[in-house]
Amino acid sequence: MSLFEDLQQVVGEEFVLSGEEATPFLTDWRGRFTGKALAVVRPANVEEIADVVRLCQQYVTPIVTQGGNTGLCGGATPGNKGDAVVLLTNRLNNIIAIDTDNDTITVEAGCILQTIQTAAEEVGRLFPLSLASEGSCTIGGNLATNAGGTQVVRYGNARDLTLGLQVVTAEGEIWNGLKGLRKDNTGYDLRDLFIGSEGTLGIITAATLKLFPKPQAIRTALLAIKDVDAAVHVLSVLKQGFGSLLTGFELISSFCIESVRQHLPTVKIPFEVNKSPWYVLIEISDHEDQDHANQLVEKVIGNAIEQGVVQDAIIAQTVQQSNDLWHIRESIPFAEIKVGKGIKHDIAIPISQVSAFIEQTNALLQERFPGVQHIVFGHLGDGNLHYNVGAPDGQEEGFLDLQKEMNTIVYDSVARFDGSISAEHGIGQLKKDILPDYKDEIGLALMRKIKRALDPNAILNPGKVISSVELY
Amino acid sequence: MSLFEDLQQVVGEEFVLSGEEATPFLTDWRGRFTGKALAVVRPANVEEIADVVRLCQQYVTPIVTQGGNTGLCGGATPGNKGDAVVLLTNRLNNIIAIDTDNDTITVEAGCILQTIQTAAEEVGRLFPLSLASEGSCTIGGNLATNAGGTQVVRYGNARDLTLGLQVVTAEGEIWNGLKGLRKDNTGYDLRDLFIGSEGTLGIITAATLKLFPKPQAIRTALLAIKDVDAAVHVLSVLKQGFGSLLTGFELISSFCIESVRQHLPTVKIPFEVNKSPWYVLIEISDHEDQDHANQLVEKVIGNAIEQGVVQDAIIAQTVQQSNDLWHIRESIPFAEIKVGKGIKHDIAIPISQVSAFIEQTNALLQERFPGVQHIVFGHLGDGNLHYNVGAPDGQEEGFLDLQKEMNTIVYDSVARFDGSISAEHGIGQLKKDILPDYKDEIGLALMRKIKRALDPNAILNPGKVISSVELY
Repeated sequence: MSLFEDLQQVVGEEFVLSGEEATPFLTDWRGRFTGKALAVVRPANVEEIADVVRLCQQYVTPIVTQGGNTGLCGGATPGNKGDAVVLLTNRLNNIIAIDTDNDTITVEAGCILQTIQTAAEEVGRLFPLSLASEGSCTIGGNLATNAGGTQVVRYGNARDLTLGLQVVTAEGEIWNGLKGLRKDNTGYDLRDLFIGSEGTLGIITAATLKLFPKPQAIRTALLAIKDVDAAVHVLSVLKQGFGSLLTGFELISSFCIESVRQHLPTVKIPFEVNKSPWYVLIEISDHEDQDHANQLVEKVIGNAIEQGVVQDAIIAQTVQQSNDLWHIRESIPFAEIKVGKGIKHDIAIPISQVSAFIEQTNALLQERFPGVQHIVFGHLGDGNLHYNVGAPDGQEEGFLDLQKEMNTIVYDSVARFDGSISAEHGIGQLKKDILPDYKDEIGLALMRKIKRALDPNAILNPGKVISSVELY
Repeated sequence: MSLFEDLQQVVGEEFVLSGEEATPFLTDWRGRFTGKALAVVRPANVEEIADVVRLCQQYVTPIVTQGGNTGLCGGATPGNKGDAVVLLTNRLNNIIAIDTDNDTITVEAGCILQTIQTAAEEVGRLFPLSLASEGSCTIGGNLATNAGGTQVVRYGNARDLTLGLQVVTAEGEIWNGLKGLRKDNTGYDLRDLFIGSEGTLGIITAATLKLFPKPQAIRTALLAIKDVDAAVHVLSVLKQGFGSLLTGFELISSFCIESVRQHLPTVKIPFEVNKSPWYVLIEISDHEDQDHANQLVEKVIGNAIEQGVVQDAIIAQTVQQSNDLWHIRESIPFAEIKVGKGIKHDIAIPISQVSAFIEQTNALLQERFPGVQHIVFGHLGDGNLHYNVGAPDGQEEGFLDLQKEMNTIVYDSVARFDGSISAEHGIGQLKKDILPDYKDEIGLALMRKIKRALDPNAILNPGKVISSVELY
């Protein structure tokens, strides 16, 4: 029997895809990475996943786990050899349990993020992980990449929202760490090791996640500020004034909003963009009521305006107005596409250094590539910038050829500021080869030791995160 | 040269202790564990720690790292062979940096927890880790054991409060993971693997920790409730009403408070203890002001009383009254000592199951050991109970001999409720031998693989957490 036939026996013929049926799963959604595979399998449950892994172990065949295929670094796309099995989690899409007294929800890895958000809301709770692809990404992928999003400033990233995991190991065993406990000091933190390991240490098959009380009122405001230093100052003032009610703090350059205005005319922009060089979009989640939220927002933002740290503010008065403000922020990546080819950097910098980082890095780029456009926005509350670079006007041709040199300038600058070259998107294939240039080498050596210990035959998503060449 | 002489050369003669000088570091503070050591060394900095580790690697000599010697499971006490080096971190007691714009503090491992709290307060920030031994425990020990404490319901445990670590590996290399980033998805989560590993995977030498805005007002209240089910219900009501302002939620049985009243007469107890079988001590941290805190507390607790879920409430009106209420809670362990020998269990249970757990486990214990006393209190907001058992009146003699059988009854019950046999104190020596009875065996096998990968000669705190016998 061949592996293909063995797989058919384990998961059923109709759930082993090849040829045209398999094609959609061999390319990432942005079309940046394309690979080949021996088969695409769709196991029904954790036992079938364990069976598939044991088979692949037997045939020493790579396994690439894929959720909603919404990753940004090619972590879920197979390589070019055609020797891999792509394992889809989308049939594991059950919500296993909701426990409102424990404030937990237990879900299978293939659940769509939005489904989990909705299930939480239906029982009067909030599951706060929120990101652009929430309608199609799976929680398994969110956990494998330790996804971030827009509410990290208050609730943390995917790792912080997770209490327990079920994982299939490289040996095809099922680790039952699916506990709903907020404290458990019985040994090493396997949970957090699997989270963020991008399918290279184990396959996450289910998770127990934290729920929070649903806020009684949400307020959104757009603040005009004079520079990034002021934004950092505003963050401090708002953290003091709103405490843990501050659930969103997004920095946006006027260039980003101007791009939205020019290229996406249906997006409502109810202000004169060029009156301020920078904006901050903030969100408050209030557990009391609408009146309290209104009063607090007026008081805290009013103070910030009086102190001169905020120049002007638009406070959304209705849910529609709030959605409109968020829609501007969410439209930036689409406006970027219209502006032309861009070179993106998902980076993190200590918040206190963000202003100096932007100033110095912009200058370095202008010196080397005069006229490039700076498309800077991101989750300043977490020090996470989307520091993107657009071609100078009329010089689109060949711009992407500059990517490598440009990345070096940006990432070298990130390193000087003790930052991270991947804040929330992970490493995948995209940054695997440059990781050794920026990661502490002792840390990298520890990662390789762990990889070798947990996956000695390197069958789990080989060539992602850690370069296979370095591994053995 | 001998190891002893080599150590003297590396850290200086006066910092290598033996004989009587070494004695205090060979017994844990409660006197439960006593061991022997070749030497007790006090390196001055991370480089000297790395040197010590390389020496011990060369001589294949065990290293037991010790902070404030306040652990509860013997994790920092050497074994009986006398072949180990005890490494004290207390000379690494510098606060390296405070960054208020980034809301981080970077400290050496030997810093006393209270010193860090005070340093944060001096710059208008809160470092929320808070526990009974804060005046003498070190942050290194807090991280090695992933300490919990009284504010976990809002701020999480030590792991949740940490952004970056510096660690000396088993090879005596220095891993520089001392970053102040809230997002960093560049590879495996080494940080959280070292946190909670009790010195068996590496030696934590410094950490970058999160700071929070200092609350403007803190309110404390003691609520009388009719049973544990009601306490779980109250938790839900208060989480809804206070949101993230709820920073403490401690369940206390009236038996505990009555013990304090009887045995510690200087502790003020401004109410009739026996009027209610259970109490909940709550704390609110308000970022607005005193008036808002007062109004909110009155509103939310008033509602809970109207709904009948809370029978009665004492709301502290002054800081002194608040301290008095906390003093009752903090006096329980001392009253326990006066009551007589007790058998302690630091456990976690899903919050929704706590009531059933207590009822069933109490019944099992009464059946087997009629008349034992139930001393139950703990951090219900995290599902963490200190489920302690006292001797029946007048039957102290030989009570501790029942410990093993009693532990089995309690821990078997914990397992049936998907709980944890160590919520916040760790494993150390105390629970090492029973861990395999309660931990998923796939999880244990993964732990052993990681231990072997990172510390192949088992020189880092051998015989703690994982039984050495099982390891090789």
